[in-house]
Amino acid sequence: MHDDLARDSKTLPADPPDAPALADTARRLLRKPAIRRAVAFIRTDDERTLAEQVRLASTPAPPFAETARAEVMAELLEASGAGPARVDEVGNVRAWIGEPADRPLVISAHLDTVFPPEQEIRIRRDGDRWVGPGISDDARGLAVLLAVIRALPPLPRLPLLAVATVGEEGVGDLRGVRHLFGPEGDLREARGFISLDGAGTARVIAGGVGSRRFRVGIRGPGGHSWVDWGRVNPIHILTEALAEAQHITLPDGATFNVGRIGGGTSVNAIPTAAWCELEFRSENEEELTLLETRLRSLLERVVGLRNTGRLAGPEEKASLAIERIGHRPAGYTDPAELLVRSAVAATRAVVGRATLAASSTDANYPMKVGIPAITLGAGGEAGLAHTPDEWYRNVQGPDGTLRALLTLLMMEPAEAG
Amino acid sequence: MHDDLARDSKTLPADPPDAPALADTARRLLRKPAIRRAVAFIRTDDERTLAEQVRLASTPAPPFAETARAEVMAELLEASGAGPARVDEVGNVRAWIGEPADRPLVISAHLDTVFPPEQEIRIRRDGDRWVGPGISDDARGLAVLLAVIRALPPLPRLPLLAVATVGEEGVGDLRGVRHLFGPEGDLREARGFISLDGAGTARVIAGGVGSRRFRVGIRGPGGHSWVDWGRVNPIHILTEALAEAQHITLPDGATFNVGRIGGGTSVNAIPTAAWCELEFRSENEEELTLLETRLRSLLERVVGLRNTGRLAGPEEKASLAIERIGHRPAGYTDPAELLVRSAVAATRAVVGRATLAASSTDANYPMKVGIPAITLGAGGEAGLAHTPDEWYRNVQGPDGTLRALLTLLMMEPAEAG
Repeated sequence: MHDDLARDSKTLPADPPDAPALADTARRLLRKPAIRRAVAFIRTDDERTLAEQVRLASTPAPPFAETARAEVMAELLEASGAGPARVDEVGNVRAWIGEPADRPLVISAHLDTVFPPEQEIRIRRDGDRWVGPGISDDARGLAVLLAVIRALPPLPRLPLLAVATVGEEGVGDLRGVRHLFGPEGDLREARGFISLDGAGTARVIAGGVGSRRFRVGIRGPGGHSWVDWGRVNPIHILTEALAEAQHITLPDGATFNVGRIGGGTSVNAIPTAAWCELEFRSENEEELTLLETRLRSLLERVVGLRNTGRLAGPEEKASLAIERIGHRPAGYTDPAELLVRSAVAATRAVVGRATLAASSTDANYPMKVGIPAITLGAGGEAGLAHTPDEWYRNVQGPDGTLRALLTLLMMEPAEAG
Repeated sequence: MHDDLARDSKTLPADPPDAPALADTARRLLRKPAIRRAVAFIRTDDERTLAEQVRLASTPAPPFAETARAEVMAELLEASGAGPARVDEVGNVRAWIGEPADRPLVISAHLDTVFPPEQEIRIRRDGDRWVGPGISDDARGLAVLLAVIRALPPLPRLPLLAVATVGEEGVGDLRGVRHLFGPEGDLREARGFISLDGAGTARVIAGGVGSRRFRVGIRGPGGHSWVDWGRVNPIHILTEALAEAQHITLPDGATFNVGRIGGGTSVNAIPTAAWCELEFRSENEEELTLLETRLRSLLERVVGLRNTGRLAGPEEKASLAIERIGHRPAGYTDPAELLVRSAVAATRAVVGRATLAASSTDANYPMKVGIPAITLGAGGEAGLAHTPDEWYRNVQGPDGTLRALLTLLMMEPAEAG
């Protein structure tokens, strides 16, 4: 996730109603000597936070290969005052802040990037920007997770667990949070989940945009472009199907994207195979189910029509394979939940405004299983996420740390209204 | 070329009318003592021909890297009785058979294969088959070119030039024959051109199937699949255009093939680029020009429509690039030409039947510039051309050599009717 990767939700109001009691609590907290010291500390800690952000971003973390970055994160968690860091069965790095306890509030950021192992990972300074793959998404979240731990006043009473997750990005299919909160997860009773993801200070992501992702493959016998003219051509079939799929009526707020396509070996050969990877997104799970059904029937119809009349046997026909390569559940956290109201009040207290928004992040999964979950940008500004030219500018960077800290403190039983 | 890669022509009659005078000539030639000795020699020379075919196929000759095979061919041409072999400016190997003279008949086979340098080149025996990349296309043609030279009776009166050409296959774009017969070529006055290409004995290729090949690229700003939803998606545009291009009405005998497609980096990103490689083929050059025009206007229209209403500036728009990556001229040699009639009569005399056909070979270019040109299979049977499992079976192998020889002899001024 990245601040730019959130949009207004179609389920949640962009401007949540003000909660005077919580606004009071936030203001009162910010006047407390311990919190004023924390605010001052966050400003002096800014340089270290930025240095750790660059170090983390400089450590490659391709999908399914987050180990190197996990080791750095484990070291930094312990150095920041968390308890012993352990890597769990799927690769998440976990560390308690204070004593282990039941029903923790989980504060999190994700280790993985979208970049493949071949991508050169080099972070460079360009004026007031840091530029390079993953510098914001989610090295910023990881660094601010560490900064929050360092800034926490002694002895928070609420059990807090820090987790650096694997598998947040596309192909990772949320496998880190699935492991925490899924059917076999040991954190199914968590009090709440906060993901620090990318840059930004004013949005509170309480809507979870779901997605269904598919790899579509079409195969045929192949042949010579001229002598075998008339044989099924998988590229021809796939392009026809995708041209039609673009005209599937999308419900308001839903999207369709073909992100990758490939096939064929030579301009003068009928290819034996063509494939694509595509996705639908929506905040509504039922809409996604309907879109999947429409896509499948469209593909089967287009392939079937091309096979019509080919009596020469199955080896002359085109075959279709549809593989679901991702399923990110849609959902949202009720804006009336304490976690959302606390985050909104903390955001308003720190930066003067707050909007609710929807995005697709680690929070989707806990939302689905009924755990209050939000995602917060971790301060600063960023752009060009998911490209090698991704950039981060440390404007209002400390505010990202402060509002995360304040959100945590407002969840304390003594503070919560 | 490969015997399997020829088809009936739409321009030429598959069954050319019999020419009694030429049939007489052929039969008379076959009874001559000198020719009977040549026939006997060809049979005894069969093993050497096959061994040279395997040696040539075993010498890699990727597109634009035919030098190694050219050196072997130069050595074998001289060893077979041709004059000094020289490599010309583009890499063709040339050797006179007898004395150099004006207006020669050119007999040829091609050096290059479709296989890239990474392809392992290993020729193996499997029962009665030889198997491996390029074993037939065109190691067979090269070997039979050598066998014909060895079998020629002494002192042919017609000036004969043997040429092993570069660049016959797809990407080579006929650069070997372009150099011989093009605007600056020194063989523009040649009497005729015979290409020995691949296996087969019964077809005389007098039709040249032309092709136009294009690489189509579409670019856009890219972005995030959900947040940037609505931006131009090059894969969406390309697939729509290709779906439509499939419905361009093709004249009888013309073909359209999208052989390769690619684009995008991640399922959850709007790609910045999509591309494909496609071709049209036809025996008619004007048809190809018309098809190219239609394709270009279709692509411009589809891209233009997607850009309509995007006022945000050119960086928000999709751009289109169409690169012509191949242009093989269409043409044919009039069946009334002595060269065609001689080849048909020789084929009938040797194997009892003959059909005219069309294919896409080195002969296309001389056809285009008005030089009588044909392509003949070089005997034997073959299959799976352009694949690593290409095979050759030496059934009626010597007949390929004999009919090429007989065709040459029938062109002798004293014989031609």
